Amino acid sequence: MALLLRAVTWGLLPWRSHCSSAPQRGLSKGFVEALEAVVGSPHVSTAAAVREHHGRDESMYRCHPPDAVVWPQNVDQVSRLAALCYSQGVAIIPFGTGTGLEGGVCALQGGVCVNLTHMDRIRELNPEDFSVVVEPGVTRKALNTHLRDCGLWFPVDPGADASLCGMAATGASGTNAVRYGTMRDNVINLEVVLPDGRLLHTAGQGRHFKKTAAGYNLTGLFVGSEGTLGLITSATLRLHPTPEATVAATCAFPSVQAAVDSTVQMLQAAVPVARIEFLDEVMMDACNRYSKLNCSVAPTLFLEFHGSEQALAEQLQRAEVITQHNRASHFSWAKEAEERSRLWTARHNAWYAFLALAPGFKGYSTDVCVPISKLPEILVHTKEKLKASGLTGAIVGHVGDGNFHCLLLVNPDDAEELQRVKTFAEELGRRALALRGTCTGEHGIGMGKRQLLQEEVGPVGLETMQQLKVMLDPRGLMNPGKVL
Amino acid sequence: MALLLRAVTWGLLPWRSHCSSAPQRGLSKGFVEALEAVVGSPHVSTAAAVREHHGRDESMYRCHPPDAVVWPQNVDQVSRLAALCYSQGVAIIPFGTGTGLEGGVCALQGGVCVNLTHMDRIRELNPEDFSVVVEPGVTRKALNTHLRDCGLWFPVDPGADASLCGMAATGASGTNAVRYGTMRDNVINLEVVLPDGRLLHTAGQGRHFKKTAAGYNLTGLFVGSEGTLGLITSATLRLHPTPEATVAATCAFPSVQAAVDSTVQMLQAAVPVARIEFLDEVMMDACNRYSKLNCSVAPTLFLEFHGSEQALAEQLQRAEVITQHNRASHFSWAKEAEERSRLWTARHNAWYAFLALAPGFKGYSTDVCVPISKLPEILVHTKEKLKASGLTGAIVGHVGDGNFHCLLLVNPDDAEELQRVKTFAEELGRRALALRGTCTGEHGIGMGKRQLLQEEVGPVGLETMQQLKVMLDPRGLMNPGKVL
Repeated sequence: MALLLRAVTWGLLPWRSHCSSAPQRGLSKGFVEALEAVVGSPHVSTAAAVREHHGRDESMYRCHPPDAVVWPQNVDQVSRLAALCYSQGVAIIPFGTGTGLEGGVCALQGGVCVNLTHMDRIRELNPEDFSVVVEPGVTRKALNTHLRDCGLWFPVDPGADASLCGMAATGASGTNAVRYGTMRDNVINLEVVLPDGRLLHTAGQGRHFKKTAAGYNLTGLFVGSEGTLGLITSATLRLHPTPEATVAATCAFPSVQAAVDSTVQMLQAAVPVARIEFLDEVMMDACNRYSKLNCSVAPTLFLEFHGSEQALAEQLQRAEVITQHNRASHFSWAKEAEERSRLWTARHNAWYAFLALAPGFKGYSTDVCVPISKLPEILVHTKEKLKASGLTGAIVGHVGDGNFHCLLLVNPDDAEELQRVKTFAEELGRRALALRGTCTGEHGIGMGKRQLLQEEVGPVGLETMQQLKVMLDPRGLMNPGKVL
Repeated sequence: MALLLRAVTWGLLPWRSHCSSAPQRGLSKGFVEALEAVVGSPHVSTAAAVREHHGRDESMYRCHPPDAVVWPQNVDQVSRLAALCYSQGVAIIPFGTGTGLEGGVCALQGGVCVNLTHMDRIRELNPEDFSVVVEPGVTRKALNTHLRDCGLWFPVDPGADASLCGMAATGASGTNAVRYGTMRDNVINLEVVLPDGRLLHTAGQGRHFKKTAAGYNLTGLFVGSEGTLGLITSATLRLHPTPEATVAATCAFPSVQAAVDSTVQMLQAAVPVARIEFLDEVMMDACNRYSKLNCSVAPTLFLEFHGSEQALAEQLQRAEVITQHNRASHFSWAKEAEERSRLWTARHNAWYAFLALAPGFKGYSTDVCVPISKLPEILVHTKEKLKASGLTGAIVGHVGDGNFHCLLLVNPDDAEELQRVKTFAEELGRRALALRGTCTGEHGIGMGKRQLLQEEVGPVGLETMQQLKVMLDPRGLMNPGKVL
């Protein structure tokens, strides 16, 4: 019973389709009518199914439905919605594609979920300046489809086909970050509706440039703020030239250490690897089954190189020398788009391949990031702890960044197992902190890592973050219960 | 007389070695003794010569001396100094190498200048993790000398041998930014003494990682804050592998447009150029004279490429095709270190070469940055305006970033000319804003661009910045009169 209670405290139970029956503040009929007056009645819903759909993301956190969902059509409506909620003290939860992994959209205090996906214009594209302005309804894949013929692309790739503004809000990254950086590096400007409805352009209205030294970096402040400081209604993003040619590869290693050593040596040799992903033997086994691969069941690197034909040849040759020096085997190069796509689809489906190991179970992903020199130590430690815990887990990692995910299977009806998952994840977070790392490389703090954040940034860091929150959201209405 | 008054308002007169006799609050004997009690009496000075030396940077802004200069030896002393000043309402001005260009160290309200250069340790170096922790006394060149044998370097290069913590404070960049980014991209963590003496580690004490999504980006907030939010007492920086080989080159163009077109085309072709600098014909003439070069007196690009021998060969070949397509001439490649050094020394001495055109005159540098597609337009416009203004000016630019400097010669005794320089610089700033750019790409706002900052970020942006200032520096003591 004690375990059950603790699991409930973590917001885990029940995490299936049933929604929380925790006390909700509810919205008056007058308030719902006021929402309708802003966006039009077809764009407001209080239906249970709609609220449930908006009360959870792809994580194991249980559903916390908002009291109402609204679909604004433009930034002016967002502004008016914010001002309305502000005046009435109603919480606001911004919603993009709902593909987050830290419960970021859970409406812990009810309130109004602002689904921004009807704002889906690519407002402008400046190919010569390598920049684009997108609204929240534009996803990563939609943007890259739009860009297909102009020789540019947006490389940040968290796997899910997420909203780009949502990716800015969570500070997302993914498999390409080792070469192209994260959202922090690729957002030039943001249009933000502040909690009271005022419109802020973090780098000045309509501006886009490669660099600036003008005043405080407001763009950087809102990237990764997880919807707790305002609603992002458009993002100006940095684009990159489409690689002339691409080669993917996999190779197996005798140990975790050998795979990580190869990674460090490639970075030291300045091989501009575009992706370098680690999968442990459990994950490889799952991927072989799920994606019909025939890879060695061993610690494996998935690699991708971008460049001219000539540059690629050299990169590949260097990578091969380094990996072979570290006793890699089962090299498999994939040059053709189809074969590359098969490999990377398998990598991106790792989550589903893992879940397929135990139908009916749910998954949870840790997200620590450590200095790369500490990666072998923490990976080996994690695998030992996993064994000792009796949990089923597998590891995938953006090793070039020192960031990895331990995916855990859990029976949603087993409170004791839920508790073990929680304990395991927290211990892993603390281990990363002890190794001078961070509890989250890319998923964000969300609901579950607030305690770890405190330990990570210390009392003055936390106090400064709390001051920022109070300064920008004095009534505490923006996505309450997240981050802090 | 009206002109003279306006020039004084801009803080320009007198800008030579005489210090301002504007009213200063002065410090009581007791307060100076309290400073001595913190850092030891040899590390406090109220001598006029010392105060004058600390009252100006390398810009044309006139000297505003502090009331006292202190040299703390460690972070604990910095903390106690801040707490002391905070309790007594005395202004603090952080001082590194004094190589800024926007009057950032001018003590506009007197107060205590905190010279941080006695804190000059490289606290730790983590070669495998590509990171280093430096104190404010460590300059860019000192760090790179220290790194010489470990295969790594710190690429951000503003020209001056500035303090790295000072570079973080001003959000510096320079010639390598097109490939390696600015300080915004290369600072991992900062140790900051807040105005009341509390110690903040922006990313958590001792932490260093490639990426994080943990809470609000405090590191980003302090990079570029120009000493107005706290004193940076150490910086954790991202290092990069030393290039295997380097080639430099110059080539002349028939027009500004042709030089910029070449730049855009190289970026579009993903040629990973490490530096791409534009110098106009006036500047080339000055460099030829000053640095004994024999370059064509025409719009010119200075280029540098980093990579393996094989990669370089391809980069050079591509660059040559692109530049020749744009009718470049007078190609000159420099492979040997000595010859490269001669070229880049000439580029970095451009400022002095320019000043040498008119001995006794002073220089002022503008710093706008625009979307690269607007660069030809604003460069041509600037040259026309320069001609019409009767001022002597030359242009150097980090064209890969859309950032350029118009250097202006001015007779320090000619109030009317000073006013023309001011008017010219403000008009150029507004032109950049109209083209959706920024009034400062890398020098910062300092004293002179506060009005332009307001126009750039708009009322809500400015209000948000003011809120940040009040939140972190409620008594307004940190480097008053700068940025806002």
